[in-house]
Amino acid sequence: MERLPSLLSPLSSFRSSAALRPVASAAAAHFQIARASFGSSGQMEAEQYKFGPYKIDSKEVFYSTDLSYALVNLRPLLPGHVLVCPRREVKRFVDLTTEETSDLWISAQKIGRLLENYHKASSLTFAIQDGPQAGQTVPHVHIHIVPRKGGDFENNDEIYEAIDEKEKELKKTLDLDKERKDRSMEEMAKEADEYRKLFS
Amino acid sequence: MERLPSLLSPLSSFRSSAALRPVASAAAAHFQIARASFGSSGQMEAEQYKFGPYKIDSKEVFYSTDLSYALVNLRPLLPGHVLVCPRREVKRFVDLTTEETSDLWISAQKIGRLLENYHKASSLTFAIQDGPQAGQTVPHVHIHIVPRKGGDFENNDEIYEAIDEKEKELKKTLDLDKERKDRSMEEMAKEADEYRKLFS
Repeated sequence: MERLPSLLSPLSSFRSSAALRPVASAAAAHFQIARASFGSSGQMEAEQYKFGPYKIDSKEVFYSTDLSYALVNLRPLLPGHVLVCPRREVKRFVDLTTEETSDLWISAQKIGRLLENYHKASSLTFAIQDGPQAGQTVPHVHIHIVPRKGGDFENNDEIYEAIDEKEKELKKTLDLDKERKDRSMEEMAKEADEYRKLFS
Repeated sequence: MERLPSLLSPLSSFRSSAALRPVASAAAAHFQIARASFGSSGQMEAEQYKFGPYKIDSKEVFYSTDLSYALVNLRPLLPGHVLVCPRREVKRFVDLTTEETSDLWISAQKIGRLLENYHKASSLTFAIQDGPQAGQTVPHVHIHIVPRKGGDFENNDEIYEAIDEKEKELKKTLDLDKERKDRSMEEMAKEADEYRKLFS
């Protein structure tokens, strides 16, 4: 939840530049996760990702299937802390279809394995805060995956305390609709680029 | 993890009494979760459940599929706090097959929905402490499901602190192999009976 989605959609600039290129140009290939599709206008459109009411820049997305996608965090708690979401915007875990549930967790399993290895970690924390009374702030199901190492937090439970704190920060930021001083899009895009390679 | 498995298998007494009855007797029907099977001796055997190195009494199990099962806790953190495990004893989430992963989480989704409703809760916490550095003590994958209500913990993160504390208690108890002063088997069996009805 600590990943703060952009309030303006950075996809718009990609979409307009793509419209100037041939359909099979390198622009689409560059975005491994951004599958091209054709609108009624015949123009190529980059894939849209939503996180609750917010549009997500495809540069931050490093993995996707037809039903799920994974994105880097604006403020990761630890290296490799990412979120996995269903593409469909649903608030509660129970709202997912059987196919979505399976796809979400098989994705999480694959992502966890690769990021644990990439960050030379030895364990993983998986958590869903499913509903407001469990700490959820953005009403869109998401799995937190956090690669863990010995001594990364003094007490293991501090990881959850930190997750909660970030959920609160996120809510505050979204409520106030303020400018954010967080990681730059460049930094996040670079991280997502690195992770994307793990799945190729 | 706060659920402390019996070190002696209480299944043995059920198995021997079942052997005295006709195959299609009420004894098997009574245990909705204990599917009868025939060993090479032709005797009916109650289904075995394992949680890491420990045998689990089928009375504590309230839900099962071919690949997963769910059990009540010896020391639940909150009403309805249960564990969902793969039947196969594997330590890490990545060790599960695609079928096991899907079945585990579709089971968790169903169980969460029914227990949230049963306990008049409004949210759910789902967590896997996947590996020792994430707080796992018993080396067998398990999902914690905790029905949540407003104000059940002063700060939401306390639920995780409590989960961790229980993992430590479990480890300590198992390490020392001591007599436990926890909930009685009768109390746990009664709770499992109630939950079993939710799935019928």
